[in-house]
Amino acid sequence: MYRKVIGNPHLILYHPTAALRRVNSSAKRLISIQQITEVSKMSIEVIGVENLPIIQPGDDLAGLISDRITLMDGDILCVASSVYSKSVGNIRNLDEIIPGPEAGRIASMTREDPRFVQAVLDSSVEIILDHPFILSRLPSGHIGVRAGVDHSNVEDGIVILLPADPMGAAEAIRSEIREKSGVDIRVILTDTCGRAFRRGQTGHAIGWSGVTAIRDFRGDHDLFGHELLITEEAVADEIAGFANFVMGESNKGVPAVVFRNMETWSGHDMLYFEESEDIIKEALKKR
Amino acid sequence: MYRKVIGNPHLILYHPTAALRRVNSSAKRLISIQQITEVSKMSIEVIGVENLPIIQPGDDLAGLISDRITLMDGDILCVASSVYSKSVGNIRNLDEIIPGPEAGRIASMTREDPRFVQAVLDSSVEIILDHPFILSRLPSGHIGVRAGVDHSNVEDGIVILLPADPMGAAEAIRSEIREKSGVDIRVILTDTCGRAFRRGQTGHAIGWSGVTAIRDFRGDHDLFGHELLITEEAVADEIAGFANFVMGESNKGVPAVVFRNMETWSGHDMLYFEESEDIIKEALKKR
Repeated sequence: MYRKVIGNPHLILYHPTAALRRVNSSAKRLISIQQITEVSKMSIEVIGVENLPIIQPGDDLAGLISDRITLMDGDILCVASSVYSKSVGNIRNLDEIIPGPEAGRIASMTREDPRFVQAVLDSSVEIILDHPFILSRLPSGHIGVRAGVDHSNVEDGIVILLPADPMGAAEAIRSEIREKSGVDIRVILTDTCGRAFRRGQTGHAIGWSGVTAIRDFRGDHDLFGHELLITEEAVADEIAGFANFVMGESNKGVPAVVFRNMETWSGHDMLYFEESEDIIKEALKKR
Repeated sequence: MYRKVIGNPHLILYHPTAALRRVNSSAKRLISIQQITEVSKMSIEVIGVENLPIIQPGDDLAGLISDRITLMDGDILCVASSVYSKSVGNIRNLDEIIPGPEAGRIASMTREDPRFVQAVLDSSVEIILDHPFILSRLPSGHIGVRAGVDHSNVEDGIVILLPADPMGAAEAIRSEIREKSGVDIRVILTDTCGRAFRRGQTGHAIGWSGVTAIRDFRGDHDLFGHELLITEEAVADEIAGFANFVMGESNKGVPAVVFRNMETWSGHDMLYFEESEDIIKEALKKR
């Protein structure tokens, strides 16, 4: 795994995380972003974690993953949020939910179980659409159909909720892996969501640890030396999307995917629009 | 690269494309979709095509890519649409554009060059928003900010247009690679777009050949035997997004990315919503 960085023959990189550590310590002023991104010249390996059992509340998800794949420093581990939620018991039994009048009103439009709708309302801080499907905002800022409440890949009568604190959930997986395996990985928690204008669902990031959601190019220049106009790339979503491709839906049972040999980047975590800048949300609420 | 498919000891798969060919010929009725997806159990390799020169109109893009990487049957090659467009001369010189009154009106709101706005209008079949930025629909069905007209990574005074026929463009790259290298690859043409509710751009598919844009799970069942409610996954966008991560923006100069050892899937190409089902477009137009 040793590799020379082009442009600086004195710097040996062990892998991206080690590279960044090195940059952050002694050589900070000597090494440019360009040299860090040279790490990306190696090919990336994407590995689905196979043969996990059906996860049950109380299961040690980080341990089950660590048992099936030897994780390495710097790996990015994507985990399906539904499987994480189930492992920590973040589920509800429909039999124990008493729907209120609002859930009843919406359920009559969406033709869903009022108890299921109540679970969606309970997960939401803002309802953006109540028909033809519920679109709502969660405490984390994520906006999703039915608040991400899921009744696929789960026993009858049970729904899985999205993690209430998805950033904390990603950090918990990361620190559990660190404790169990002694490796410093990065974690992205994924969910499957629809998009504007385009049919079909894709994977999105709902929580992350060890990475920023946005790669920020502000101040960077293009091939012709012009300052970039587009400066923010939602890399966590791009990675979550491809993880979702590898996971598949249905019965493949691959709820975790490892990305190996991934570069590091700098940026920020303001993934969700502020109220004032969200033109689509504003238009939908006026609808 | 030989690998046995679990569940059918008589079938040796060379790689996904070969597998599908095999399935399509003799053994069609014996092999289930489940067995085809077993191919995905190998890890995926993602390789940025490095050291391409700055592409100029008339350049042989497929040849330049083939010279830098040995492509293999079944590889998925993602190409940045801007680079393809430039290679085929799908660019405009701002000095040769005379903006009309509509371009002038919009440019005064968006504070852009009226000639640039005229290029955007000329690329569009429907304007969805004219401020604070132009959001429009292209003949292909793709909806994007400024119709994807781009003036980054291009000489001063030049804008790059999205390919007028992106499906034809993907097919052209694919057939040129087949002619030059004798290999049957799959191609996705990518563009960088914003999203609803979330800050930051991600890669999207705007043209493709040898794959379907949507993986269709209709009739599939979950781990508990229930028929799936979510049945369509926009896999072309998930792949395009991760390709965009590997490409990076700014001055990395990696406009092509190869995905190796990718499973095959079945589905359809109806990536864009019909008028009647596009709730967000409807709400934005009423705004």
